[in-house]
This record gives sequence, C-alpha cells and structure tokens, in this order.
Amino acid sequence: MHPDLKSKVKTAQEAAALINNGEIIGVSGFTGAGYPKVIPAELAKRAGELKAKGEEFSISLYTGASIGDECDGVLARAGIMKMRLPYQSHADVRNNINKGLTEYIDMHLSHSARMIRMGFVPKPTLAIVDACDVTPDGKIYLTGCGGNTPTYLQTAERIIIELNTHYGDTLIGLHDVYIPELRGEIHIHSAGDKIGKEYVQVDPNKIVAIVETKLPDSLKPFAAPDEESNAIAAYILEFLSHERKKGRLPNDVPYQSGVGNVANAVLGTMAKDPAQAPVALYTEVIQDSVFDILEADKLIIASGASVSYSLAGQEKYKSNAHAKNWKSKFVLRPQEISNNPEVIRRLGVISMNTALEADIFGHVNSTHVNGSRMMNGIGGSGDFARNCLLGFFMTPSTAKGGKISAIVPMVSHTDHTEHDTMVFVSEQGLADLRGLAPIKRARLIIEKCAHPTYRPLLQEYLEYGIKHSALHTPHSLDKAFDFHKRLIETGSMMVG
Amino acid sequence: MHPDLKSKVKTAQEAAALINNGEIIGVSGFTGAGYPKVIPAELAKRAGELKAKGEEFSISLYTGASIGDECDGVLARAGIMKMRLPYQSHADVRNNINKGLTEYIDMHLSHSARMIRMGFVPKPTLAIVDACDVTPDGKIYLTGCGGNTPTYLQTAERIIIELNTHYGDTLIGLHDVYIPELRGEIHIHSAGDKIGKEYVQVDPNKIVAIVETKLPDSLKPFAAPDEESNAIAAYILEFLSHERKKGRLPNDVPYQSGVGNVANAVLGTMAKDPAQAPVALYTEVIQDSVFDILEADKLIIASGASVSYSLAGQEKYKSNAHAKNWKSKFVLRPQEISNNPEVIRRLGVISMNTALEADIFGHVNSTHVNGSRMMNGIGGSGDFARNCLLGFFMTPSTAKGGKISAIVPMVSHTDHTEHDTMVFVSEQGLADLRGLAPIKRARLIIEKCAHPTYRPLLQEYLEYGIKHSALHTPHSLDKAFDFHKRLIETGSMMVG
Repeated sequence: MHPDLKSKVKTAQEAAALINNGEIIGVSGFTGAGYPKVIPAELAKRAGELKAKGEEFSISLYTGASIGDECDGVLARAGIMKMRLPYQSHADVRNNINKGLTEYIDMHLSHSARMIRMGFVPKPTLAIVDACDVTPDGKIYLTGCGGNTPTYLQTAERIIIELNTHYGDTLIGLHDVYIPELRGEIHIHSAGDKIGKEYVQVDPNKIVAIVETKLPDSLKPFAAPDEESNAIAAYILEFLSHERKKGRLPNDVPYQSGVGNVANAVLGTMAKDPAQAPVALYTEVIQDSVFDILEADKLIIASGASVSYSLAGQEKYKSNAHAKNWKSKFVLRPQEISNNPEVIRRLGVISMNTALEADIFGHVNSTHVNGSRMMNGIGGSGDFARNCLLGFFMTPSTAKGGKISAIVPMVSHTDHTEHDTMVFVSEQGLADLRGLAPIKRARLIIEKCAHPTYRPLLQEYLEYGIKHSALHTPHSLDKAFDFHKRLIETGSMMVG
Repeated sequence: MHPDLKSKVKTAQEAAALINNGEIIGVSGFTGAGYPKVIPAELAKRAGELKAKGEEFSISLYTGASIGDECDGVLARAGIMKMRLPYQSHADVRNNINKGLTEYIDMHLSHSARMIRMGFVPKPTLAIVDACDVTPDGKIYLTGCGGNTPTYLQTAERIIIELNTHYGDTLIGLHDVYIPELRGEIHIHSAGDKIGKEYVQVDPNKIVAIVETKLPDSLKPFAAPDEESNAIAAYILEFLSHERKKGRLPNDVPYQSGVGNVANAVLGTMAKDPAQAPVALYTEVIQDSVFDILEADKLIIASGASVSYSLAGQEKYKSNAHAKNWKSKFVLRPQEISNNPEVIRRLGVISMNTALEADIFGHVNSTHVNGSRMMNGIGGSGDFARNCLLGFFMTPSTAKGGKISAIVPMVSHTDHTEHDTMVFVSEQGLADLRGLAPIKRARLIIEKCAHPTYRPLLQEYLEYGIKHSALHTPHSLDKAFDFHKRLIETGSMMVG
C-alpha cells in the first residue's frame, strides 16, 4: 500500500463502526467472487450490540449477484438485511425473503446499475469493495468480480476498501472497467474487445477506511456432472452441429452459459470433445469448466462479470501450459456490459440458461417455487434469452426423485415468455420451438422434454384445452395449476 | 414507370396466377400502412376456383404488423391463411387463429426479420410490396411502411410490386432503409439519425410482376379520446414533470407510444399543453396525434416503422405552416431498427404501452383473453418495455362496463414480467413500482390503479396469500384465477 494511504487504514471493527443504521450498502461480489469478507461480521456484531441496547439497526444490501457466506450469510443471520437486490442464492437470505423479513428486488442483472445511476432506486450511501490495490489518487483495482462495483463506487458517498493481498497482482489487468453513458455506443465487436480501464477511478476523498485482509473467495467447485446433465449437454452439442450443417449458425458466435451444474456440464463436454472448435465466451460467470476448455487449448477468449481465482490457482491448472496463461484469455467487465443487450445482440450470442420449470407452451419460471417462494432470482437469464441469436433453456425433466415435473401445464410464475424461448432441453430430449405456434410447441415439449411419467397427464391437459378453450393457447384455468396443487397437498405432482 | 419495366406490368389477376399453393408470402405493411391492396383479392378468387376443383390451396402470410382488410381480411375470409406472423389485429384473422384454422406465431416485432434472415423460421418464397416507385436496376421506394419489407425483399425468391401512384413522390425520401449485419453497430445516436438508403436495393431479375394501383391505405383515424384516456394521459404527464424536477429524467429523451386510443390521448394531450417542451419520438407507429404535435410546432422528430399518409393529406394539416412540412420531421425505418434494443437502450426512450390486463405484482398480459384467446399479439411492447429508460403500462381499470377488471390477482398469460414493468397507470391513478418488492408493489397497484369496485377483492386475495403463502410473492394457486373463472361462468368478474 502507498504510504499516503496509511492514515486510512482501520481494523474491520473500526470500519464497521462507520456504518450507520439505514445505510444502503453497495458491495462488490458476483457469484461468489470478489465480495467483502471481514467487515460484514463486524457489522453484524455491532448491530447485535446496538439492538441489545434497544436501538434499531438495519441496512439495505446491493450486490453484483450472489456473494459468499461471509457477507450474505452473516448479514442475513444477524437479521439486519432490510432490503436486498439484484440477485441472491444463499439459503439464509432466501429464507428471510420468504419469511417477509427481507425485501428482495429481483432485477435483470444488466438493469441494476443504470436504475441506480438514474436514481430510479436509491443510490448506495456506502460502497464496500474487495480490492487488489488502491492508489492515493483513487484508482481501485478490483479482485475477481466486475459486477456493479464501478457504479457503486461512483455513486456512493463513502467508500470502504477491503484491501485483499491474497491475490498479489495476478488479477490486475484482467478488468475492463467501462460505465456506459446514456447515449454512447458500446464499441465491443468481439467477445474480447477492451474499451475501458483496468481500474475504477474514484474521488480519493470518498475513501473513509481501508481494511487489510488476505482471504480467498470461499467458492466451492461444482460437483462432477451427473448423467442427466451429460445427456442435456450431448443434445445441445448435437443440435449446434446440426444447425451449423444447415448453415443457420456462424462458427464464430460466442457462448453464454448460466451458472449451475447443467451449464457447467455443457462447457465441460465441449472441453472433452476432440471435434470441438475453439470457443469464445461472452458470458456472466467464468465458471469451473471454462478452465477445462482452456486446459484443452480450445478457449479463444472468456468475457464475464466474474471469475473464480481460486480455480485458476489449482495445482492441475498450474501445471498445464495453456491454463497457466489463463490471464491473457479472460476479460472481466461490469455486469451491465457483460450482460448488455446491445452487445449480446450484436455478437449473436448462443445462450444457455437453466429453467426451474417450463410449461408446455414454452414459458419459463426461473425464480419461484409454487408461484410464491423465491429461489435465487432471474439473474442475467433475461438479458441473454431476449437478445441472443439462439437460446436454450435446460432442465432435468424431474426433480425430488420424480415427485416434481419440470414441465407443467402452466408455469406458476413467468420470467421468460414464449416470445423469448427457442429451444428446450431435458435429459429426455430437445424441442426446437422456433417458428411454431403454441399447440405445436406444446406437442413437441411434451414429446421431447417431459418425463414419460408425466407425459400422459400433460397430454390430457392439452387435449382437454383443445376441446374446451380457444385454440390459440388452449389453457383451462380451472386445471392449470393441478400439478402444483397436488405437490402442495401430497408432496408430489404425480397422481395417486 | 421506367420503360424498361413495362414488360413486367401485369394485371392483379395475372400476378395472382403466379402464386402457388404453399407459398410463404412476405408482404409490406405495418399497422395499416403500406400493404398490398389489389393482389390479395385476386388470390382469394383464384384459391376459391382451385378449391372448387378439389385442389388444395393455402399460403403463409408474413407482414410487418397489422395490415388492412384488403389483405388480412380478404385472405382470412378466403380461409387460405395457414400461418401468420408476427402481429395481427384484424377480427377475421383473430377468429381464425382462435378457431385453430390459422397458426399464429406471436413475435417481438424487432425479432422477426433476423429470425427470418438466419433461417430460424422459413424464408418467404414471395414478397408482395406496396411501392411508390421502382427503377430498372432494382431500387424500390416504399410507401408508408418500413416494416419487415427490406428483409422480405432481400430473402424472397420472387417479388411482386404493387406500384401505387396514389402517393406521387411525397413519401420518397422519408425512408432510412438499413438492414443490420450480425456484427455491426447501429449508429443511431439521436432519434432522427439516418444511416441507410432511401430505397431497398433488390436484384431486378427477382421482380416477376408489377401491378399498377392508385389506392390509399384504408386506415381510419382514432376516435376522440374519452375521459379515461385523458385521465391516464394527465397522470403520465404529471409524473414525467415530477421526475424531471427530481433530476431523474433528462429533457431530451425521446418517447415511444404504443398504438391505440390511450397512447394517442397521451400524445394528443402533449400537443395541447402550452407548457410541453418539444418532443422527439423514437417509436413504432407515427400515429394520428403526432400530427397534432407537429401542428402545435412541438415536434423535433418522429422516427417510426410506419406513418399514415392519409393523415398527412388531411385539409386541417395542409393549411398549417408546421404540419405541411411534415416530411422533414419524419423518418421511416425497418421495424428491427425502429424497435431495436440497442438503440432504444442507448437513446433512453420513455416507453408507453397498453396492457390488456395486469396483476397485482406487476406482470402484464398484452395478448390473451382468459389465458387462451389471442387478441392482437405482443407487437413491439417487449422491445420497448425491456430496454427503455422509463416504461409505462396503461389501461383503463375496467372494461365491458365494469364487468372486467384490468387488475387481477394473477394474469392469465404473461407477456411482460415484473422485471420489465416500472409504472402502471389507469384512470384511477399511477403506481410507480421502481425499487419495490412484490408485496409493496401489490399494495400500490391495488390502491392506485384498481377500480374501487374490485379493490376489496384484490385486497382479500393479497391478505389471504400473506397468511398462507411464502412471503416473497404470496400467491394462492387455488384462488389465483377466480376473477377469470367468474368471468367465464357468469360474464363478470364481480362477485354476486
């Protein structure tokens, strides 16, 4: 650290003491990478002490996306998170949301920064960021996450930095920090184009504390892909190859892959396939299997809003000639750029996202169990599904040992409409819905994607609708949620 | 017409004889402007004769958006429209769709051209376009609609032109024909920027017939705004003024306005308001009241996918110093540019669209009655709602003399999700949902937008959910469609 900054160094406890009741805190962090790791615990402690004295204490928490337990979990368990946006996936946060203890605003990841800059949602009063370095003139070098951090740093009145020496200088140079103007074009024409700076510039007077840490992200690697995920991956890769043969898909379009086991399996399968052409990614999260693609020397470039540095540091990658040069292949961007509609549409991204449930007419629920209970949030799936060249929604056909069908007559919550969904894939098969009217879509989804156990029930619903309803989208509103009602009443969507 | 083209001149009957069974016909036309007017009738006649001989005859019809009765109505009544995309609003077409006689693919207006160019839906085999002029080297000057015409002309194997001398040369120079590449930026930084050509260039050998006509579009002007529309307009303008005072809205952002009486009333109110600052429009349809804004000398520029020339020709505008120079203020674009996400997001468009129904949590149904029956289609509302700076959804709080509430517990079909809706307006009031979690959204929509008759029922639904469901989005799936079920059973959503 530069000697001029020494006066700002504080302990985590001292920094936490600067945080007031009602504060709106914008933190760094996106999908478990680059979030603050020590101040939240001290803040929770301080809140507990204040509450013990009868004082009120709560804060609003803005992030990039999901973040580690040291921040999300700690603050949720302390019961001081009044409001949360724009994405979360921590069990304790989710529980508080569904108990009505935390208000959650579920937003498209590309929308949140602009909504904040415009003042459409309140600006953060305080930014807390995990950083590799900071200079006396206010250059902040971020760790493994672009996220919403540049906008939080720009709009917050005060800044606290967790200066994290765990990374050394290995993450410096990865970032392309660019905050779009209301009117400017975004001059990205290829997944790896850089248009910004390697750091975030702030007014150094806003920095009120620097807390020294040396801590890795607590991200855990994904489990090995299961049979279902591998089957889904195989259907997708076969389909892409078919589309290329038909001349409908250029070779050089980049991929986006949602987060999770299925998405990870698709990329992992690409890494293993000897016939796989080199791959560019214009995605949100540079997840585990991207390193496998890199190791196999098939990675052109990976652009994302975050990367797990702990993966890059793993022994198996250190010893690989391609993987040890990982830095030259990765670009980290603010999430409004990684997920930007303009760029996604221009690059012609192939998008792959996971559905929680889908209905026979091709609507997707990404967020709610039984229409009410929030799981994680929509994340960036809407940014990509709407604007991609070719989009997949993937899900195993059943969950909970077959008790839940991922294909239902009508989704209990809609995050992606029929207008934005093209290809559905389960371990049962693939349904290409492009250019099909609703009844044809339904027949194909039931035939190709539904589990055989549920096919007759879905078929029955469709045929009943065709007999009794208007024939564009023949729903029967008195039966539309029978699957969900059985699940609520009996613990299973199955009949009898 | 140039003498070199004389050999291609045919009668409408002769041109119709060139159209085969199974043809996919891409026609010009967008919201009642610039569609073919004479060939469809001859085609319907020819189909009737063939069918009388026991031959099969049907076609698929691709348009820009809705088109006049001379094409949509005629072909629907002839029963030969097997498939239709991407938008329609003709009663006869709609009836065939809901009877299962016509397959309808309801698409975002900005998506259709690219889906076709990529071959994701079949390319048209034949294009039929209303044109002001055509040159021997294949320059086609369009009439009142940009629409999907350039892409249909580019991708179809054969072209038939209805050369319409009704317009003289008054529509020449209005068009900015630009078909985006997969990778190119769209260099529009201001609503009026022109980046293309005044004509569509085609291979002249593809032109198989030119049919001479002299016919206006059959568009009818809107009815005078009713009290409800005026109330909605007043709420919106008051809110915009409030947002500007708060510094949350730049003065120079352009407006988009959906089609219909309410949207027309908003623009009409702007025209009449002496305090209204000059207005730029980056919209789909340059509708009636834009001429009122022009007449009041408040129009900076109006960019759209179509304009009704018949309005421009009206006596009241002819005599007005500003309105008679209308040509210099209008730009007509292909609909993938008028509705382009990149440009809409960059310009920071204020978007105003009509909801068919909305639910208490802020989801919008734009298309389906009781979840099954197609009305018109989503049109461009998704292009704008997702990518705008500030978006309104507008609807009178009730329909059918109060028997239908536009605000329901759960929409019966979702076209716009909670992630894409910001401000709701009915004649009862305005609900600004930005930055609110679902339960707060529900309380505000019920209080501000629902009709007093339905408020207690909606309130009851919400409170029941809060007691019995998870507290993020407290729905009760067994009661979610009670409003719609009552409507189906009793003809009214009211109780008792």
